[in-house]
Amino acid sequence: MADTFVLFGATGDLARRMLFPSLYFLHAEGHLEEKTRIIACARSAREKQAFREEVAAMVCERADGAQSDVVEAFTKRIHYLAIDVTTPEGYGELAAAIRADGGGKEVVFYLSTSPSIFGEVCRGLKAQGLSEAPHRCVVEKPIGYDLESNIRINETVAQSFSEERTFRIDHYLGKETVQNLIALRFGNRIFEPLWNSETIESVQISIAETLGAEGRGGYYDEYGAMRDMMQNHLVQLLCLVAMEPPSSLSAEAIRNEKVKVLRSLAPITEENVEAKTIRGQYTEGFDPDGGKAASYKADVENEETDTETYVGVAAEIQNWRWAGVPFYLETGKRMAERKTQVVIAFKPVPHSIFGGDASNNELHIILQPEERITLQIMNKKPGISADGMPLEELPLNLSLVERNNGARRRIAYEQLILDALTNNPSLFVQRDEQEASWKWIDAIAKAWSDRGVSAKPYRAGTNGPSAKHVLTERNGHSWYE
Amino acid sequence: MADTFVLFGATGDLARRMLFPSLYFLHAEGHLEEKTRIIACARSAREKQAFREEVAAMVCERADGAQSDVVEAFTKRIHYLAIDVTTPEGYGELAAAIRADGGGKEVVFYLSTSPSIFGEVCRGLKAQGLSEAPHRCVVEKPIGYDLESNIRINETVAQSFSEERTFRIDHYLGKETVQNLIALRFGNRIFEPLWNSETIESVQISIAETLGAEGRGGYYDEYGAMRDMMQNHLVQLLCLVAMEPPSSLSAEAIRNEKVKVLRSLAPITEENVEAKTIRGQYTEGFDPDGGKAASYKADVENEETDTETYVGVAAEIQNWRWAGVPFYLETGKRMAERKTQVVIAFKPVPHSIFGGDASNNELHIILQPEERITLQIMNKKPGISADGMPLEELPLNLSLVERNNGARRRIAYEQLILDALTNNPSLFVQRDEQEASWKWIDAIAKAWSDRGVSAKPYRAGTNGPSAKHVLTERNGHSWYE
Repeated sequence: MADTFVLFGATGDLARRMLFPSLYFLHAEGHLEEKTRIIACARSAREKQAFREEVAAMVCERADGAQSDVVEAFTKRIHYLAIDVTTPEGYGELAAAIRADGGGKEVVFYLSTSPSIFGEVCRGLKAQGLSEAPHRCVVEKPIGYDLESNIRINETVAQSFSEERTFRIDHYLGKETVQNLIALRFGNRIFEPLWNSETIESVQISIAETLGAEGRGGYYDEYGAMRDMMQNHLVQLLCLVAMEPPSSLSAEAIRNEKVKVLRSLAPITEENVEAKTIRGQYTEGFDPDGGKAASYKADVENEETDTETYVGVAAEIQNWRWAGVPFYLETGKRMAERKTQVVIAFKPVPHSIFGGDASNNELHIILQPEERITLQIMNKKPGISADGMPLEELPLNLSLVERNNGARRRIAYEQLILDALTNNPSLFVQRDEQEASWKWIDAIAKAWSDRGVSAKPYRAGTNGPSAKHVLTERNGHSWYE
Repeated sequence: MADTFVLFGATGDLARRMLFPSLYFLHAEGHLEEKTRIIACARSAREKQAFREEVAAMVCERADGAQSDVVEAFTKRIHYLAIDVTTPEGYGELAAAIRADGGGKEVVFYLSTSPSIFGEVCRGLKAQGLSEAPHRCVVEKPIGYDLESNIRINETVAQSFSEERTFRIDHYLGKETVQNLIALRFGNRIFEPLWNSETIESVQISIAETLGAEGRGGYYDEYGAMRDMMQNHLVQLLCLVAMEPPSSLSAEAIRNEKVKVLRSLAPITEENVEAKTIRGQYTEGFDPDGGKAASYKADVENEETDTETYVGVAAEIQNWRWAGVPFYLETGKRMAERKTQVVIAFKPVPHSIFGGDASNNELHIILQPEERITLQIMNKKPGISADGMPLEELPLNLSLVERNNGARRRIAYEQLILDALTNNPSLFVQRDEQEASWKWIDAIAKAWSDRGVSAKPYRAGTNGPSAKHVLTERNGHSWYE
């Protein structure tokens, strides 16, 4: 396990909401070694003790019932260092802090910063000999606006940290339920024979948010839903659902299978983009509490913007397993409900002997607002009947996590930070996955631009533009809402 | 629905424990029509009202909290008739009782008597014109001691009641969970692709009783476990597990599929009988409460008897679906635990990426002591881990019936009596099923006799003769206990 965890961007929003609380839980539950120190870097000057108190407050905000002595022991691991990462001078001081008291034998650098300064940080670390093995770095989206910029950023990092020591976080992969999908698929004999076009009718992956783009204006307006959400989270979920069984849980084996899926995605072109995709942008409407919600244009203060806040895609995977099975992907802001889920819809039975209204089997992998996996099956309706054998739906809860009554809901970053500390890259995203994903996304963006596909308006608080139904209805399907 | 239900053997044990309580529940829950009368026949003289009070007592013994006015309304349907069925004279009186008040348009005759008098009863009914359509008769095991006597008894009945109006009860088929097995297999798309030798390693069907043969001496000592239990209940369960999807729920369609299974059973011959079967007989030991239990020889007062009280068979079904999958069947008296269950054991995953101790999937269809269907799957162990992805077993409850909190456990006969009343023979056993089953059983009996296979002793209160493990261990399997 790494002896030092260096966090750049220690005063940022992600650090406050996710990273420090995750580190605290790792500490409180005994996952950190005694030696493990946290060096918290940011630009502003702060007293070491004052920052520890700030962190204690962050932790208590998230961790109900955190004991003060445990919190105090945790914050003692933290050493604040004010550093201007854009100038080479600061790195000497950082190196000294890392190496103090015999530390710095194995360091994880977490770059919770804009990718625009990845280059400077990596160069600074390299200059101090801090980018050699076994040191590693963790970076997070957005890693590029398109394939070209993605390659550029990854190259910049690669000049200091080799690929196997570059941990690209997609925090969806840290979610309990996403990992359980892997456990279910490959830890049980009974799912693989069902997992193909013979038995599965369609797959739907949705990430619906109720929030708008307020406060994220500049960044979001440049990126839009496809680059901000679909390129990473949706595509990663699609890979885990669709990939062949990997030969092991190693990062290499999983990456290989994910890349194969990405390279099998049917290209979306100028010819089919209007049949296969839909762009939307929210207009004035309501938030989930019934309050008024401003339009996207107002939220980002740009009356001219055509950025999509909703994107829906009917994807196809051109391989033997999935040919003919539509993968419906969608994500949007200011939707009616906050819900992230994967729905595997099975075909109807080939021939029904029960008559009436037997429903098809469905597997629901729900990530938001709660984590849960449910398999919908048909059961004999209990009791006797003078009229054949009536069936009834029975939802099976396939995840232990919810039964764990009273257990707190974990932060996805906990597992991922632990994996970075213990040098296990299985749940991180590798470079060629990103590149394959961006290739597919870039083609969609180009086709939109070439065809002049504009964003269709949808009222804030609804489920996206009504034209989205054309994507599914063409195949006799409908979106799960 | 039949307007009259005639019960022969109305003062017998089955009538008291099962049939009248079942009829009562059908009445209390509104399944009977107002016109439906019950004519209760037995040899002994009884006053109509006195018998109604006897039935009321039987019902209250079984139906906790039965309301006295409901019980009274039920017993008003009952008309007791003392009749000596072995003489032709009584049938005239019976016919008059049936046809009183415009009744007797559609009659169900339930022969809860020894098969030795089926002939006389059927002839008596025929003489009165009571065996024509739409009248029908219900008969129960034992229908024969072997194929020859089975054919003889069925022929006797057939001279009065045509095959489609002969309802042979196997009360296991009336159990909620057995019907739910049909619902699960054919009401869901997700089970059939798993239901074959590709995915299933073995099937075990066990009926273990803790009672001995005390009080059933003469009959049981003649029949033994194979004829008393395996020929009917075990073989019927095997058929429902193994059959191909029927084209409908009609009796004809289900019968066809069951017969195909029975005819595919690999014959057990003099050459393989010692490798494929095991006979046992209990010796002195313990009952489940730790009390002393007598030996079988003492229970039936026959020191010379070699009748088996335990039988185990490793059966094979020679068709494309099941080739190579052993079906282990066993039944015994004075076993350690009262338990009836079918266990479908799935193969291990072809390649485990999780390491450690992943268990194989198993589907448990439990009929005794409670009814339940459980699917054992592997899940991600909740929580974070620094060491790969540990799995944990998760038993899924696949049957609604247990969730039905507070609902009473139904008597298997309720559905079957209702089906007889409404003329739905789907859950009854047809003649050629019995004949195919007896053919297989007769061959085993002959092989035992030809090889002089004697019953191995096992202590009362244990799980049968220890030599039974040879049947499973040969394939690397073991009995579920």
